[in-house]
Amino acid sequence: MAEVPDLTAEQVAYFMGIALAEAKRAEEIGEVPIGAVIVKNGQIIATGSNRRETDQETSSHAELIAINHANEELGTWRLENTALFVTLEPCLMCAGAIINARIPLVYYGAKDQKAGAVSSLYTVFDDDRLNHQVKTYVGVRAEESKQLLKDFFQGIRAKKKAEKQAKKAAENAEND
Amino acid sequence: MAEVPDLTAEQVAYFMGIALAEAKRAEEIGEVPIGAVIVKNGQIIATGSNRRETDQETSSHAELIAINHANEELGTWRLENTALFVTLEPCLMCAGAIINARIPLVYYGAKDQKAGAVSSLYTVFDDDRLNHQVKTYVGVRAEESKQLLKDFFQGIRAKKKAEKQAKKAAENAEND
Repeated sequence: MAEVPDLTAEQVAYFMGIALAEAKRAEEIGEVPIGAVIVKNGQIIATGSNRRETDQETSSHAELIAINHANEELGTWRLENTALFVTLEPCLMCAGAIINARIPLVYYGAKDQKAGAVSSLYTVFDDDRLNHQVKTYVGVRAEESKQLLKDFFQGIRAKKKAEKQAKKAAENAEND
Repeated sequence: MAEVPDLTAEQVAYFMGIALAEAKRAEEIGEVPIGAVIVKNGQIIATGSNRRETDQETSSHAELIAINHANEELGTWRLENTALFVTLEPCLMCAGAIINARIPLVYYGAKDQKAGAVSSLYTVFDDDRLNHQVKTYVGVRAEESKQLLKDFFQGIRAKKKAEKQAKKAAENAEND
C-alpha cells in the first residue's frame, strides 16, 4: 500500500482554499472556474487552473496542469506521497492521470454529474484491477466550488441574452 | 452525430505503420514502444511516441503527445473529423483525452489487459452518458505491436539477468 500523507482538517481547508483561488484565476480569464493544488510534506509544490480555451489545448485542465508542474518540480513522473486538491470531481482524463502519477490522496469539492469519473459516472480510484488506488474525500468546501460554477454559467447565459436583445434592437432600429 | 472520417483499408494499414514507426522511436530511447498518429483529411497532422521516462512526465504517453501537437497544428482543442491511430489500447487518461478532444474515430493495435480503457477494463468510448462517443477499431496490425512490446520486455529481463550474473561474478572474484 502506498504511503498516504497525513493532513489536519485545517490543512485540508487551507489547501482547498488555494484550489478555489486557482478556480477564480480561471474565471478571471473567461475559463470555467476549476482549480487544483498538489501538496507534498505539507507544502504546495504545484498549482493549476483550467486554461482550455486560453491555450486551445485539450489537456489544459487544472489537474493535468498541476501534475505537469509537480513532475517538473520533483523531477519525476511518480508523485508518490503527495495529495491533490481540486474544486470539481475529475473527468476520466484527469482521474486517469492521477492514477498514472501514483498520487495516493485526492480531495475534491463538488461532484460532476455529467463527466465525473471518481463517484458520479465511474469510481476509477477504487478499481483494484488497476495497479494503483487513490484514497478520496469528496465535498471539501463544495458549496464554494458550486457557487463559483453557478455564477460563471449564469454570467454566460446573461451575456448571451443581452447580446441577443442588442441584436434584436439593432434589427428593429434598421427596420424603422 | 459527429462526422467520422472515411478511410480505406490501405490508408488504415499505412497510418498504423507510421504509429508503429513511432513506437520504434520510443524503443530506441529505452521507452516502452508505443506510438500514435493523428490524421485529418487523409493527412498526418501529428505524431507522438511514449516519452514518460525520458521526460519524467506523467502525461508523456504517445496519444497525449499527439493530441497536444494536433491542438497546436489546428489551433483548437477540438479535434473534430480526425482519426487517431495508436499501437496499444489507450489507458484511462488517454481514452479520456480522446473523448475530451472530440476525436470521432480511433484505430488501435494490441489490447492492454492491465490498463486498457476501451475494451479490456472499461469501454468508455461507447458510454452514452458522456457527451461524446468514439467509433473504434481494434486489432489493426496488432501482431507487430505485440511483438515490439514482447521484444522490449524480454530485452529488459535479459539485461537484468546479465547484470545480476555480472554482480555475482564480481563478488565471487572478490572472495577468491
